[in-house]
Amino acid sequence: MAREIAINAFHMNTVGHQSPGLWKHPRDRSRGYKDLETWTSLAKTLERGLIDGLFIADVLGVYDVYGGGPETALRAGSQIPINDPLMLVSAMASVTENLGFGLTCNLGYEAPYVLARRMSTLDHLTKGRIGWNIVTGYLNSAARGLGLDKQVPHDKRYDQADEYMEVVYKLWEGSWEEDAVVLDAERRMFTDPAKVHRVEHNGEYYRVDAIHLCEPSPQRTPVLYQAGTSGRGRAFAAKNAECVFVNAPSAEVVKSYVDALADELSKVGRSRDDLRIFSMATVIVDQTDKLAQDKLVDYRKHIDHEGTLALMSGWTGVDFSTYALDDYVEDVETDAMRTALRSFTSSVSPRRWTIRDIAEFGAIGGRGPTFIGSPSTVAEQMETWVDATGVDGFNLAYAVYPETFTDFIDLVVPELQSRGRYKTAYRPGTLREKMFGEGGSGRLPSSHRGAGFRV
Amino acid sequence: MAREIAINAFHMNTVGHQSPGLWKHPRDRSRGYKDLETWTSLAKTLERGLIDGLFIADVLGVYDVYGGGPETALRAGSQIPINDPLMLVSAMASVTENLGFGLTCNLGYEAPYVLARRMSTLDHLTKGRIGWNIVTGYLNSAARGLGLDKQVPHDKRYDQADEYMEVVYKLWEGSWEEDAVVLDAERRMFTDPAKVHRVEHNGEYYRVDAIHLCEPSPQRTPVLYQAGTSGRGRAFAAKNAECVFVNAPSAEVVKSYVDALADELSKVGRSRDDLRIFSMATVIVDQTDKLAQDKLVDYRKHIDHEGTLALMSGWTGVDFSTYALDDYVEDVETDAMRTALRSFTSSVSPRRWTIRDIAEFGAIGGRGPTFIGSPSTVAEQMETWVDATGVDGFNLAYAVYPETFTDFIDLVVPELQSRGRYKTAYRPGTLREKMFGEGGSGRLPSSHRGAGFRV
Repeated sequence: MAREIAINAFHMNTVGHQSPGLWKHPRDRSRGYKDLETWTSLAKTLERGLIDGLFIADVLGVYDVYGGGPETALRAGSQIPINDPLMLVSAMASVTENLGFGLTCNLGYEAPYVLARRMSTLDHLTKGRIGWNIVTGYLNSAARGLGLDKQVPHDKRYDQADEYMEVVYKLWEGSWEEDAVVLDAERRMFTDPAKVHRVEHNGEYYRVDAIHLCEPSPQRTPVLYQAGTSGRGRAFAAKNAECVFVNAPSAEVVKSYVDALADELSKVGRSRDDLRIFSMATVIVDQTDKLAQDKLVDYRKHIDHEGTLALMSGWTGVDFSTYALDDYVEDVETDAMRTALRSFTSSVSPRRWTIRDIAEFGAIGGRGPTFIGSPSTVAEQMETWVDATGVDGFNLAYAVYPETFTDFIDLVVPELQSRGRYKTAYRPGTLREKMFGEGGSGRLPSSHRGAGFRV
Repeated sequence: MAREIAINAFHMNTVGHQSPGLWKHPRDRSRGYKDLETWTSLAKTLERGLIDGLFIADVLGVYDVYGGGPETALRAGSQIPINDPLMLVSAMASVTENLGFGLTCNLGYEAPYVLARRMSTLDHLTKGRIGWNIVTGYLNSAARGLGLDKQVPHDKRYDQADEYMEVVYKLWEGSWEEDAVVLDAERRMFTDPAKVHRVEHNGEYYRVDAIHLCEPSPQRTPVLYQAGTSGRGRAFAAKNAECVFVNAPSAEVVKSYVDALADELSKVGRSRDDLRIFSMATVIVDQTDKLAQDKLVDYRKHIDHEGTLALMSGWTGVDFSTYALDDYVEDVETDAMRTALRSFTSSVSPRRWTIRDIAEFGAIGGRGPTFIGSPSTVAEQMETWVDATGVDGFNLAYAVYPETFTDFIDLVVPELQSRGRYKTAYRPGTLREKMFGEGGSGRLPSSHRGAGFRV
């Protein structure tokens, strides 16, 4: 039987997220990101649709590669202003019971001892519904906010991340025994001190000499997400990630990522089943193919070319402001651009791309594919994509907020359910149990690196 | 007319808080600190009682001065386990409209650029109900969790804190003009880039070269709380704080703090009215004086001497485990102890104190006074305290959770209202407007240091 498709909703504590300029659409409500009701309402909607999780991206900087400053991103509202994602969680958790939360935190900017407590706190409050999207950042503007001249180099960031993970595993898995909290009034004992162990870590980047501050939470280590597709990123993912987020416009490219991850997993003794892989996508759906196409035409009136290129410049490091929108890529292409654009221009369709094409391609939902049509058309496209790439599901970006999500839930979810490709109820237990089955305790499986730090 | 008395509820994301061992009381529910419903229920209760704010203390370490290790604190549940306070806020904000949140964050352990965004996010989500309790920490165990051997020395911590405040003022007050976000669909402009300014700070402790990541929140700078009573702490408070939290068991000592703060304020051109001073206290109330005394006797069956001394050792730096409970303080007193205990033994009552007396004095509600009796007895005591010390109100600790708070709200609030010493409705506006009157915009007054960084 074909596997169920997993679905995360993809958002950020900002306006527009992956669709710069669509805040101008009369039905878009993403500018309400500052208001709690926007988020509690979203959480309830997603849970109604049996969505696995809300995946909240984050950057701690502004997209200022384009034009060498933040002006274009500010004008267009391209992921700026951008608020803290973690502050949203408890309100959404209080109005839901099953929805998971995939939370992006940059480990470069927070001590492991502090982040470990924050995540344990959220795992308690949500009763085990927390995932952590481990990122090391890509914006030099973020580094400058923290007193550095620029980002730590890519490979060194991964060395640091490796050690960081060791420290948080020690805190989450190795400090408190499962039954350390005894609540024994007779013996006047809240916690049995013999069952709490000090973590002593003396590494190259981190030193810790402390007990973890939190009692054992349902999952201990949150479900671990990661998004790197570089060689070093893949090796990191194979060792640490339980979910990987990949992003490319063509099934061929995504399949190559999936295959490479599977190879890497086998090298560290884990199986492909130990990992869930999510591909970014955007769904534009309506009752008929025609209505869906019309909807997209309407949405496209509001795209922002420069605002989109500002994001792309941040992602790729190429300052697209130095070209005219009508320049042909092949006429102006540099080595850096070629690398940056390979996954676009080579794999989507063989045509002469202009800079405008690049912008328009990414203007709605970013660099992932867009599935457009009636519910059955979209379901067909999603099944085909999953089967062709080997991914487990999608991170769904939105065009118009929250319409893109409600359309998906109202129209595509029933269609996928009727095809046996979508669950009809949440599974019980923690986020980890929901994603990987009911066998375990909700904690990391024994094949995972983090389990080695368990007491 | 006598002024209204302001009231904060004092709590921590932990069990027992200031009353170690009382988690064993059959009616205590503080062990539910891990559950969201505990906090949303508390928030609704406090708002029903027109309580000004929930003040959430925090430590990022464990009390391990007593006996040279964390064992006693762990066993007794003395502020350990301890979860992150900020993660609680959005859930409580979503079920209330007026309750303020005073949130403790240690500035030594978080970059100003990151903390500024976190606070702005919460100020948005709560529609301006956020206060920040600025602390620099007192536990070496926290420093060791972050890779240091011990705390930065006291005075140097304040130098660092002074500069930290400069940085966050620049981010909160000086980066975005009030009308920077224009939401102008015609001009395709979300934010007017000309109205967003880069903060460039090159100091001794911090470097920042970035724009603030958040659009202007209702209060910009959160209401600033501070708790230092050292000379250096007072000078810091006079320059930065809008609320000060003082803590001593005798009215004389508290009055001396208030007078010293007033002196310090005048030196920097601020008036006593620019500051709200809260004194820590615990209220044990019942229908009659007799019933209240009985309640206290019942509570005291559950106190934990060693657990209390573990807290006191952390606060004072004196390892009380080296003495027997029946040792007389005057027989074993060292210089460090004399300093640490001065505010206890000299000011409460002239008697021969044992170590046990010290523990029992602090066992319920910590080092503040305890007001015990019928509603009118307690109201009388509170009025007397306020009038004798010059404080504006109280941070109320609990003995049994949440009973101590519900008793206060059900019994003392109506009594204080009938005496004209307690509001009968919340004032409109942000936390700052509620606390300081409706004149302002909710932003820092022009006499405040932070206002000087405004664009």
